Amino acid sequence: MRAGRYYGPGDIRVDDIPSPVPKSGQVKVKVMPVPPNGICGSDLHAYVTRVPGYPSNEPHRTTGETAPVTLGHEFSGTIVDVGPGVDATKWALGTDVAIEPIFGCSKGDCFPCSNGTCNICPRGGFIGISGWGGGLSEYIAVDLRYVHILPKEVSLEVGACIEPLAVAYYAVKRSGFTAGQTVLVVGAGPIGLFLLKVLRSIDPTGTIIVSEPAAIRREFALEHGATHVIDPKAEQVPSAVKRTIAPGVHLAFDAAGIQASLDACLDSLRQRGTYVNVAIWETKATLDVNLILAKELLFTGTLGYDRIHPEVIALVAAGKITGIEKLITRRISLDDVVEDGFKRLLNEKEKHVKILVHP
Amino acid sequence: MRAGRYYGPGDIRVDDIPSPVPKSGQVKVKVMPVPPNGICGSDLHAYVTRVPGYPSNEPHRTTGETAPVTLGHEFSGTIVDVGPGVDATKWALGTDVAIEPIFGCSKGDCFPCSNGTCNICPRGGFIGISGWGGGLSEYIAVDLRYVHILPKEVSLEVGACIEPLAVAYYAVKRSGFTAGQTVLVVGAGPIGLFLLKVLRSIDPTGTIIVSEPAAIRREFALEHGATHVIDPKAEQVPSAVKRTIAPGVHLAFDAAGIQASLDACLDSLRQRGTYVNVAIWETKATLDVNLILAKELLFTGTLGYDRIHPEVIALVAAGKITGIEKLITRRISLDDVVEDGFKRLLNEKEKHVKILVHP
Repeated sequence: MRAGRYYGPGDIRVDDIPSPVPKSGQVKVKVMPVPPNGICGSDLHAYVTRVPGYPSNEPHRTTGETAPVTLGHEFSGTIVDVGPGVDATKWALGTDVAIEPIFGCSKGDCFPCSNGTCNICPRGGFIGISGWGGGLSEYIAVDLRYVHILPKEVSLEVGACIEPLAVAYYAVKRSGFTAGQTVLVVGAGPIGLFLLKVLRSIDPTGTIIVSEPAAIRREFALEHGATHVIDPKAEQVPSAVKRTIAPGVHLAFDAAGIQASLDACLDSLRQRGTYVNVAIWETKATLDVNLILAKELLFTGTLGYDRIHPEVIALVAAGKITGIEKLITRRISLDDVVEDGFKRLLNEKEKHVKILVHP
Repeated sequence: MRAGRYYGPGDIRVDDIPSPVPKSGQVKVKVMPVPPNGICGSDLHAYVTRVPGYPSNEPHRTTGETAPVTLGHEFSGTIVDVGPGVDATKWALGTDVAIEPIFGCSKGDCFPCSNGTCNICPRGGFIGISGWGGGLSEYIAVDLRYVHILPKEVSLEVGACIEPLAVAYYAVKRSGFTAGQTVLVVGAGPIGLFLLKVLRSIDPTGTIIVSEPAAIRREFALEHGATHVIDPKAEQVPSAVKRTIAPGVHLAFDAAGIQASLDACLDSLRQRGTYVNVAIWETKATLDVNLILAKELLFTGTLGYDRIHPEVIALVAAGKITGIEKLITRRISLDDVVEDGFKRLLNEKEKHVKILVHP
């Protein structure tokens, strides 16, 4: 079968590899040709530079795999085979499913895994990054633990977006956001826009301000839930925020992960506000700890999620989160994944939100 | 009367100034000669260098005062006079009281003041730093809002320590600490040691590790509640912590406020642990935001307290916090406050915990 595999920065190839055979407790899922896989911002990072957690010569601590590995962790598909011991009534052939790619080591003595936080297990990883196959391929064999049945209300395309939506959902859940609180979201890429959708599912009318330098993404933000947008190239974000909401917002989500976004968030928060970082940083930040003190801010960050796919799928199925498909700005084929996917996203970043890969 | 007044860095003078007359809603408190005033770490900072919030030529936003102002915000005293309209039955002459020095602007439209957080009001300040007199003087006239009666179980000397104890109490309260959680305290100066006392009042037996470079302060820490001490000059704090408590502590209190203490705290925390900064920083910090993400840490800080003196006094009166007087390592006279107080604390920092000033 065809599979897009990561060899290292600047080196992603579409190879022919053997189709997987489901082992005990696994199902085989047909991802391609029709079902889609999204290209994630982290994949883009890893295409540009060496990113911790992406495949290298060093075997992954849990999968044992080294580069190349099949990429793609935002995907859905259809069950086409089941392994030994799998209940074929529940996991019937033809069932549409979304895959939850994050795994921990699941060892009994692992503190994060035994406390509902496999996502921060130091031996954990992602299907589609750390091994065990990925979504940029025709088929994948997956342990049932990571397979979630999609109800008929959720299409396979939307199913492929459940993963980044789960990232946003988990960040909002951890932030303690409640209806009536005011929010700043910095960065209106896919995660920023999905944050908007999740916030709107909790509070349909509250103030959500989005800071984003790209005009087209500011338009997306307004269409998908923002009440106000700020162009950080044109004005000071904290002043603009405080003109709208004095003495500042309750919550700031950083979906950009740069010094300017951190500073904008901290200065835009009211006293006892909460900063939630949802971005991977390429450099270390400079922090004025006295500012944390002087406003008694809470500073935290979330990485992925742990076993919340069912909640997210239920929200989408119930119509609490809608319009996901409008954020899919391009559909490409697997063979074009490098030129038409990775390179286009890097060169025309501001024109796209989510690119889905299928022939 | 005699009063130790702050003119600027390196310039504290004991001057003769008029004794205050209590205005409406005030009591006059005799601080000197017998009742004491502590020298605070922030006062020391301000003696060495320009510290934001300390008196300058700029009038304070709430008191309107400029340098010189009487220093001293850790003090107790005895009521010797009452102003017009004060209930002399409740505020009887001869009553021992502790002063709560932190104030906000208390304006109705002030967000922090109207939300129980006067301590982080941007127009707020401290009696003894921002004006309205201070503890390094024979008398002070104080608004009743800041006066707390000491029960007979609490001596005037201990009463002078209620203020720094309140800083520690508030930090522990905001941290969410509960019995059974493991704790690292970095820095065993007065605040670090008071943190120990407050933690012990909640959990008499749990693991509390203290990192402190000065041997005499490590001994104090062991005497006053630490189960383990680490010399950060001799070993890596996170390794030492994790040898004692895998996978790290639940909570880390930073009572040092330097890059090394921040790094030691963050690396010593377990997943989803909480970092509480209780120190004023002289420089900005470098922060690995990905570490906050990878462990989903909470990072926060507290500045002073807001109206918790009665709770702290009650804890001391009930015997839940004991041994405060053992942390008073020197008693000096007001006339010697510079040479024997400030300079000694700076030159022999590791030998002293709390110096109280009285003749």
